[in-house]
Amino acid sequence: MDTQELTELFRASFPFWDRLSDIDRETFLNSSQNVYFEKGTNIHNGNECTGVILIKSGSLRLYILSDEGKEITLYRLFSGDLCIFSASCVLDTITFDVFVDSEENSECVVVGGCAYEDVSRRLPEVKIFTLEAALSRFSDVMWVMQQILFMSMDKRLAIFLLDEISKTGGDTVRLTHEQIAKYMGSAREVVSRMLKYFSSEGIVEVSRSSGIKILDKKRLRALTV
Amino acid sequence: MDTQELTELFRASFPFWDRLSDIDRETFLNSSQNVYFEKGTNIHNGNECTGVILIKSGSLRLYILSDEGKEITLYRLFSGDLCIFSASCVLDTITFDVFVDSEENSECVVVGGCAYEDVSRRLPEVKIFTLEAALSRFSDVMWVMQQILFMSMDKRLAIFLLDEISKTGGDTVRLTHEQIAKYMGSAREVVSRMLKYFSSEGIVEVSRSSGIKILDKKRLRALTV
Repeated sequence: MDTQELTELFRASFPFWDRLSDIDRETFLNSSQNVYFEKGTNIHNGNECTGVILIKSGSLRLYILSDEGKEITLYRLFSGDLCIFSASCVLDTITFDVFVDSEENSECVVVGGCAYEDVSRRLPEVKIFTLEAALSRFSDVMWVMQQILFMSMDKRLAIFLLDEISKTGGDTVRLTHEQIAKYMGSAREVVSRMLKYFSSEGIVEVSRSSGIKILDKKRLRALTV
Repeated sequence: MDTQELTELFRASFPFWDRLSDIDRETFLNSSQNVYFEKGTNIHNGNECTGVILIKSGSLRLYILSDEGKEITLYRLFSGDLCIFSASCVLDTITFDVFVDSEENSECVVVGGCAYEDVSRRLPEVKIFTLEAALSRFSDVMWVMQQILFMSMDKRLAIFLLDEISKTGGDTVRLTHEQIAKYMGSAREVVSRMLKYFSSEGIVEVSRSSGIKILDKKRLRALTV
């Protein structure tokens, strides 16, 4: 990626870009790296400062991890999104550890945390952008929390399946029960049991080779309300 | 509370106070109200804009509520603290509904949400203060989430009891099992069962009249690691 392309990416990602001084733009450009993450790579690991990640293609998954290795997915990021929680040194009020993995082969640009923090500390507009970017994810995380704590499993699985097909198109979810359980912060057994129930009701068709096919979207939707 | 006292409270609560213009200070002062909330009052209810609440004495509890009426306590606020989530119009990236109750008889000052938002929109320093105040609670909420989702009940109850006695002093927790369950986002039966277990182990002594007395703090602490 040449400087021209990088500048365009920054302009699209940072609303303050055109108002930065030449020196600050240099700081951003010089501290940035093109990074290619293969599917399944752990990119950020707790409270180190990996930097601000811009996703050019692919997808990243943010999650928290218990001492016993249990994961809960907070949210996923896609092309055009920006990951701010991987820059721990920029957000000093954030004291919990977030993990980031690439879910697909992903092309990213990583802006060095120290360079970003240096600009953000001096320019209120950059600071406000950063805080708002972080705070906007608070709502996503609360949504996940409410899903897990308040909702019954059938409702949650129905919402998950509908979300998946609306994201990927088509009518089939090509994820294993294990993967679904991980995304939902649940256990594989619970997911399998519920899918079996959906299947017996004629709502989905589950096959090892082709995944989970939604047969009755209307009834699945009825479960979500 | 006269203007002099109110000014002192604002100076102590808002680090930007001395840098506000006279007009902006007037805006804050004129939009503020002394409010006394009796113990158990619901102060804020979802996404209305109640305003920014400064707690002079007493305590407030923030929680989320499921459709079925299940509550999960996010955190509590005490004298000197500031509640920003009750001013929904100030934080437009926050889309989840938070509820606020007074836990004790509480004296508060409520700064009108519109007045606050007007100043915050114009002055970056105020905006940054507001966003940081909100974001700093993200970590508290994640802590609660991890407690509920990852930890076993004995560990969680041990931490809760130790927290309580360190806050109130003494060695006795004067809360009902129902109240403890509510604070922990658990069920009364679960709390009672675990307290019975702690009691049978000689860690606590439970009595209807005087609450939960911690007999063996060392063993209770051992459960928390």
